[in-house]
Amino acid sequence: MPTARCPYDAPVTPEEFRRHGHELIDWIADYVEGVGGRSVFPDIGPGDVRAQLPEHPPTAPEPFDAVLADVDDVIVPGLTHWQHPDFFAWFPSNVTYPSILGELLASGLGVNAMAWVTSPAATELETLMLDWMQELLGLPEGFRSTSERGGGAIQGTASESTLIAMLAARWRATGGAVNDDGDTTRLVGYCTSQAHSSIEKGFRIAGIGTARMRVVPHDDRYAMRPRALAEMITADVAAGLVPFIVVTSHGTTSSMAFDPTPEVAAICGEHGIWLHVDAAMAGIAALEPDYRWVNAGVELADSYCTNPHKWMGINFDCNLFWTADRAALIGALSILPPYLQSAATEAGAAIDYRDWGVPLGRRFRALKLWFALRTDGVGPVRAMIREHVAITQELAALVAADERFEIVAPHPLNLLCIARTGTDLDDANDATDALIDAANTSGAGLFTRTVLDGRSVMRISIGARSTTRDHVLVMWDRVSRLA
Amino acid sequence: MPTARCPYDAPVTPEEFRRHGHELIDWIADYVEGVGGRSVFPDIGPGDVRAQLPEHPPTAPEPFDAVLADVDDVIVPGLTHWQHPDFFAWFPSNVTYPSILGELLASGLGVNAMAWVTSPAATELETLMLDWMQELLGLPEGFRSTSERGGGAIQGTASESTLIAMLAARWRATGGAVNDDGDTTRLVGYCTSQAHSSIEKGFRIAGIGTARMRVVPHDDRYAMRPRALAEMITADVAAGLVPFIVVTSHGTTSSMAFDPTPEVAAICGEHGIWLHVDAAMAGIAALEPDYRWVNAGVELADSYCTNPHKWMGINFDCNLFWTADRAALIGALSILPPYLQSAATEAGAAIDYRDWGVPLGRRFRALKLWFALRTDGVGPVRAMIREHVAITQELAALVAADERFEIVAPHPLNLLCIARTGTDLDDANDATDALIDAANTSGAGLFTRTVLDGRSVMRISIGARSTTRDHVLVMWDRVSRLA
Repeated sequence: MPTARCPYDAPVTPEEFRRHGHELIDWIADYVEGVGGRSVFPDIGPGDVRAQLPEHPPTAPEPFDAVLADVDDVIVPGLTHWQHPDFFAWFPSNVTYPSILGELLASGLGVNAMAWVTSPAATELETLMLDWMQELLGLPEGFRSTSERGGGAIQGTASESTLIAMLAARWRATGGAVNDDGDTTRLVGYCTSQAHSSIEKGFRIAGIGTARMRVVPHDDRYAMRPRALAEMITADVAAGLVPFIVVTSHGTTSSMAFDPTPEVAAICGEHGIWLHVDAAMAGIAALEPDYRWVNAGVELADSYCTNPHKWMGINFDCNLFWTADRAALIGALSILPPYLQSAATEAGAAIDYRDWGVPLGRRFRALKLWFALRTDGVGPVRAMIREHVAITQELAALVAADERFEIVAPHPLNLLCIARTGTDLDDANDATDALIDAANTSGAGLFTRTVLDGRSVMRISIGARSTTRDHVLVMWDRVSRLA
Repeated sequence: MPTARCPYDAPVTPEEFRRHGHELIDWIADYVEGVGGRSVFPDIGPGDVRAQLPEHPPTAPEPFDAVLADVDDVIVPGLTHWQHPDFFAWFPSNVTYPSILGELLASGLGVNAMAWVTSPAATELETLMLDWMQELLGLPEGFRSTSERGGGAIQGTASESTLIAMLAARWRATGGAVNDDGDTTRLVGYCTSQAHSSIEKGFRIAGIGTARMRVVPHDDRYAMRPRALAEMITADVAAGLVPFIVVTSHGTTSSMAFDPTPEVAAICGEHGIWLHVDAAMAGIAALEPDYRWVNAGVELADSYCTNPHKWMGINFDCNLFWTADRAALIGALSILPPYLQSAATEAGAAIDYRDWGVPLGRRFRALKLWFALRTDGVGPVRAMIREHVAITQELAALVAADERFEIVAPHPLNLLCIARTGTDLDDANDATDALIDAANTSGAGLFTRTVLDGRSVMRISIGARSTTRDHVLVMWDRVSRLA
């Protein structure tokens, strides 16, 4: 017979949790404030971290202090520091203090936001946060939860938003038949070669295939050519295919290019094609009214996403997805076994977010957005966005004045794409690649390489929350010395 | 010209973060220790939470205390409390103190674990945690990262693991062609009607379709009939179709049924069909060596997943996915634009987990597993699992002794499925449904309804970390009075 003794006695008591929790909070503040004193990228090779840790799990509980010592001695020295002011790689993934606390609370509550009934407040706060953000970003009224046909949900990543946009589009293009027959043989979709890799991944996952992802030509600003798109669609329709989605990018990863969504939307409208706008990086800039242009044409789109977990500093993961056609999304994703039914949902009064994405279980991610919007507000983010854009333009002027470099793409926001000049393309590419390696190795900063129409490019992404004008000027001094 | 002033001044200063972080840590300990004093399910209707919150975002920063007051007054009273000892609904989603701290640290570091180069320690600790868990659960050697062909990764949910298993299976069955041509027209897969809804969702998302998800008959224990499976496969092959996956469930959501994976694996082996084992709930029971049988046959499977975020108390989300054929998984999911390339990966020395799942960006989830395994260890979880199983068996004896009730499914672990007895099925079903409603409304506990072969069933899932024998006995006293 079982005893009446509570079964969950554990070495980490509530008192231990309080003590080490306080320590960890302080540790995090120290880390965030002091990260600039570390090396942005660790000087280690594959396997070096694991070699410092036991190959087998401990057989007896260890004190918390031993774990925190290993965090200091093994883990942190093995990290790429995304909060570092010299982090100019990929795109930013900022944290802010209130969002860290929101995530902490979500972890402590341990509730599941998969359906209204599984935690009503988690669902309703999520809906409200989507509506608040619609307002703060100046997005279409048709995206609001209170609109007739639209709404939004928090996703983990833009990759997931791209995928569910395709699933909704696929459902609508087939009149829902695809759910049952899986017949994707006639479907075809469109984006440019500059679209994020997650677009091709979505085509694969959804069973469409890369061959049915039409790569629409881009102009010299790396933006989609609408006329070329129209011609491709016409040809595909004539061939008996069914164009089901166009994905435009607002701020591509390689060069921060903006596809002309208004013109593309007109073409989609003619053919009834789903238009998804991927504004993962740049969309959030619309928090600053001067940059509302980053979302131009979104009012004509069927779906849209942007990432508060990038520039805005709502810690990863927090992707916001909106659609103007929630029926298509829910049609594509809703499956209702008895154990997931509830009276509130049957009455149509409640939202079950499990039908708005790939996963069933969902964290209470709305808390971190709510904490940040109420305490920090958007003022600091607006100021930071303005500052980062201004620094980028100032850096662009410095680069333009140096004949060893060339700016190879428009830089309307906070990404500057540069290359070494040279009469021979291969030589210039080699010089650019060598410069990126030297910059990363020397600790001048951390940079990502990309390729734009055959040209090696050094991306300078100015978006870490800690990056100031001084950091950029010092970085450029170091980089230009290396060249 | 931009000023040199640091752009990220925000109302929530490091000092404010420390102060409110300490408060929040204490708040969480109070919540977890005191949750039993709350009502497990809120007495509210759809819209009640939102009605208490401002419709529009604040125009000026508010003090943190105002937000925490709203947490107390609006949010928490609107939650379903998954940590409550009277939570007998769905499946558990436990939190433990060290895992909360691990999540907190991950939030504070704000690094991205999408690739080795984006934070080497995050990748390497994740790999090590998968290997530690392989060892602790007694899983096959072929799942270890150090094996020739296998490995694992942390996913958000079992839904995602199911989906990527299908994508790997689809890739292998088509020799990789599906990536390009998206041709799924001949593919067909298999599971029982008892499989989780995420299996059907996966068939949909992957563009296979529900009609190509063969529902294999189950026996009176709700387990797959291998002979029926073999016959269906033979018929499908004869019809020119390509069986590409079989999903067996170890612990179904409705009734905790176990499909006979060893027999199923033999059939899959004959035909070269990918076998995925979904042990989302039950697999973790293997932490207790007496329950290693929950993973019987897994050494014959191509992929497998279980959820530390359920019974084990690693806070959501933490799903562990392993495969014995990582080449198929990576083949299905790897896409490599220039901005995601790295020397370490090209040399084959490093793992890039972005190729092991749907999302590109990934949180540093290994930390919470590492924190918990080192400080609490698995001892408390083993004790809790033994206790919960023992309580379930004791409850089963009480139910069996009451002629008003019937136990309608095997209960080898911690889920008891009961129904009201009755000569007329409809009447009995009505009585069971009424009992569930009465139990949930009266606060006797929170329970989920399911349906087993046309019969309404009250699920009693005993898995909350705070649930003791006393809670269950009091619950049963309340429920039997309501009957």
